[in-house]
Amino acid sequence: MSEISSQRLLSRIEQLRVIGEDPQGGITRPFGSTAEIDARQWFVSEAQQAGLSLHVDAAGNIWARYPGKRPGVLAVGSHLDTVPHGGAYDGALGVLMALEAIQSLKESGYAPEHTLAVLVFTGEEPNAFRLSTLGSRLLTGVLSWEDIVSVTDDEGRPVMKALEDAGASPDAYDLSLDDVRGFVEPHIEQGPRLQDSGEVLGVVSTITGIIRHAVTLVGEQNHAGTTPWALRRDSVQAFAQVMMIFQQWLARYAGRVTGTVGFVDVYPNAVNIVPSRVEFIVEWRSPDLDLLQQVAQGYWEAVEAWSRTHQITASRHVILNQPPSPMDQSVQTLLAETIAHHGMAAPVMASWAGHDAAHMARRVPTGMLFIRNNGKSHCPDEDCAQDDILAAQQVLTDFLVQWDETLAKEGIR
Amino acid sequence: MSEISSQRLLSRIEQLRVIGEDPQGGITRPFGSTAEIDARQWFVSEAQQAGLSLHVDAAGNIWARYPGKRPGVLAVGSHLDTVPHGGAYDGALGVLMALEAIQSLKESGYAPEHTLAVLVFTGEEPNAFRLSTLGSRLLTGVLSWEDIVSVTDDEGRPVMKALEDAGASPDAYDLSLDDVRGFVEPHIEQGPRLQDSGEVLGVVSTITGIIRHAVTLVGEQNHAGTTPWALRRDSVQAFAQVMMIFQQWLARYAGRVTGTVGFVDVYPNAVNIVPSRVEFIVEWRSPDLDLLQQVAQGYWEAVEAWSRTHQITASRHVILNQPPSPMDQSVQTLLAETIAHHGMAAPVMASWAGHDAAHMARRVPTGMLFIRNNGKSHCPDEDCAQDDILAAQQVLTDFLVQWDETLAKEGIR
Repeated sequence: MSEISSQRLLSRIEQLRVIGEDPQGGITRPFGSTAEIDARQWFVSEAQQAGLSLHVDAAGNIWARYPGKRPGVLAVGSHLDTVPHGGAYDGALGVLMALEAIQSLKESGYAPEHTLAVLVFTGEEPNAFRLSTLGSRLLTGVLSWEDIVSVTDDEGRPVMKALEDAGASPDAYDLSLDDVRGFVEPHIEQGPRLQDSGEVLGVVSTITGIIRHAVTLVGEQNHAGTTPWALRRDSVQAFAQVMMIFQQWLARYAGRVTGTVGFVDVYPNAVNIVPSRVEFIVEWRSPDLDLLQQVAQGYWEAVEAWSRTHQITASRHVILNQPPSPMDQSVQTLLAETIAHHGMAAPVMASWAGHDAAHMARRVPTGMLFIRNNGKSHCPDEDCAQDDILAAQQVLTDFLVQWDETLAKEGIR
Repeated sequence: MSEISSQRLLSRIEQLRVIGEDPQGGITRPFGSTAEIDARQWFVSEAQQAGLSLHVDAAGNIWARYPGKRPGVLAVGSHLDTVPHGGAYDGALGVLMALEAIQSLKESGYAPEHTLAVLVFTGEEPNAFRLSTLGSRLLTGVLSWEDIVSVTDDEGRPVMKALEDAGASPDAYDLSLDDVRGFVEPHIEQGPRLQDSGEVLGVVSTITGIIRHAVTLVGEQNHAGTTPWALRRDSVQAFAQVMMIFQQWLARYAGRVTGTVGFVDVYPNAVNIVPSRVEFIVEWRSPDLDLLQQVAQGYWEAVEAWSRTHQITASRHVILNQPPSPMDQSVQTLLAETIAHHGMAAPVMASWAGHDAAHMARRVPTGMLFIRNNGKSHCPDEDCAQDDILAAQQVLTDFLVQWDETLAKEGIR
């Protein structure tokens, strides 16, 4: 058994936490920012010092490899970027645990059957280019270069330039999973279920499906004083009404489907003008594909019906339509066995958050290990107990060995 | 009787319309913009060519005077700035009618008893400095220099610099109304009442009171997938609920109080984050002070009660509290008589829009002449028929002579 370095892991968490620290709270380290490049460089330097062999692929994903005796790569990792004012664990913890696992195995003299690789994905979170899970989608072919080659941020900076700045060589054509035999992503749960159940770790069964629609409500711009109430076609008042419809749909499917309206833009957004237009993004999530589609469609039909009778023009376009992504059964089983071996119970649970693992699962056997946190995420208050991190690290490192050896035996068979 | 030049007036409307024309629709000519300065320069040049004597006061208000035989100034005018994507008549028409009236009286050889002045107010509309009716508030002492000396726009540009750029000499201390015997503002109605009644002109009885509150709803920022619906403190959903309360209050007082929420700002405004904070500005208007205060207070108490029971923190601050402003009775009477003399009926009506005249009325005898328009305003579709403009111009020019002579007689008495 390898000896993990608790102090090194915890120290790295603190070192990474200050990269992109935001004076207004939390960490702001989106893909494309200087802070995100700083985080990449810091990680590369740590992995090089650990003696791992570094490669940045065409999508900017960082691979830090510890070579094995035979062909095949077992990848473990997550992402380094954050949402605005995010926390220190979402993504970062999975990367640092993967590095600690492989580094400590190397230090203990473990000679792996397969190449073990820390895999750091590019741009998992929403970013200025409106391309979340960018690295995993390019790697798995969900996105093609044609899809993104002319994408820019609002300032006109091409995403191809941001990839280049991140150290990627987009003309390298090295996005291949042929050699990869599996991927595991350790990640904080980001919800309260492990806390409520009293368990430290969870095995993910399925990653939620996500549907996002950009909806536009158009009324009529007019004077806020002189336009009689009955003649107004006020898009903000219409927005409030369709939010009531939204709340009704969610109440009907509580616990099985969830939804959020996190982005709202009002035009012209002046105090004394009846607002003519509201754009908002409605998001639905469920591990159940049928329910997901049913609720998203039902809501939209209700919005259209309301709008028609209230002289509001409602339109939408689909910006994300991602079906639920089941995790590999044998990876789930091996994760559960390893957790049990360490004397812990292992609830099997759906992930209500999207992850790079959702894309990887469509191409290679993929699993996710959930680590209990304080139930908060995508906010400065996100936290994770040190004891839980260290327990998870023991399990992950041990799991890597079991996985490596199990697949080697299967390979022989 | 003077002969007005219909062609000159209509031509000036078209010349002014293109200054600040917005490629995205309408006219964007806010105080502090290059377009607004261009409009000022164009007006000054027109007024100089008309032989009027120009002066820009410390608040940037432009006075174009035709000297009279005795002390005392009768001022007529409005403003040149616009809302974003506004129309060609709101403000501009009043200024151009005032210029046409005085210029045509001068050309006809009319020697006025009092000095007649076109008065162009600075920054009537909301602007980057959040100081609407800036010029009239400084002139009437509603705002003091202390109130604005450290005000900047979001880019840090001081309002004092913007005033200087507009040609004002803020250290001139020439803001005096001692010599001003009255003010009349011709203005499009901006609503549908004259259209509905079939009349061209209206005499304003009172300018609406306006209360504006900036309201902040604070919930809790969290992950949009993993936070169970029941545990969310979602500020956007809370906003929708308090908009329902808003709609209920308005329905109860329909026709007597109106209200608008034209400005909404969501934080952090990301698709996958439960939004922690919504700031919005709620505005109430009524010509009835008691009702106005009652509705604004009642709404706020209902919002507070709802928020308390839904774990949302609601706070507000007053950004405007302007009581209704009655117009001078003798000016109203003389306007009505002049309209009747031109063979038209003159409905007496409240103004639901705020105007510089509301501030002037607290210091000098003030009146407003409403001109029928297409019912739309603060939008690119704002329109006003040429026949109505020309009929209004005849009345205004005639009124000026009657007013001048009437006051001269009073002065003799």
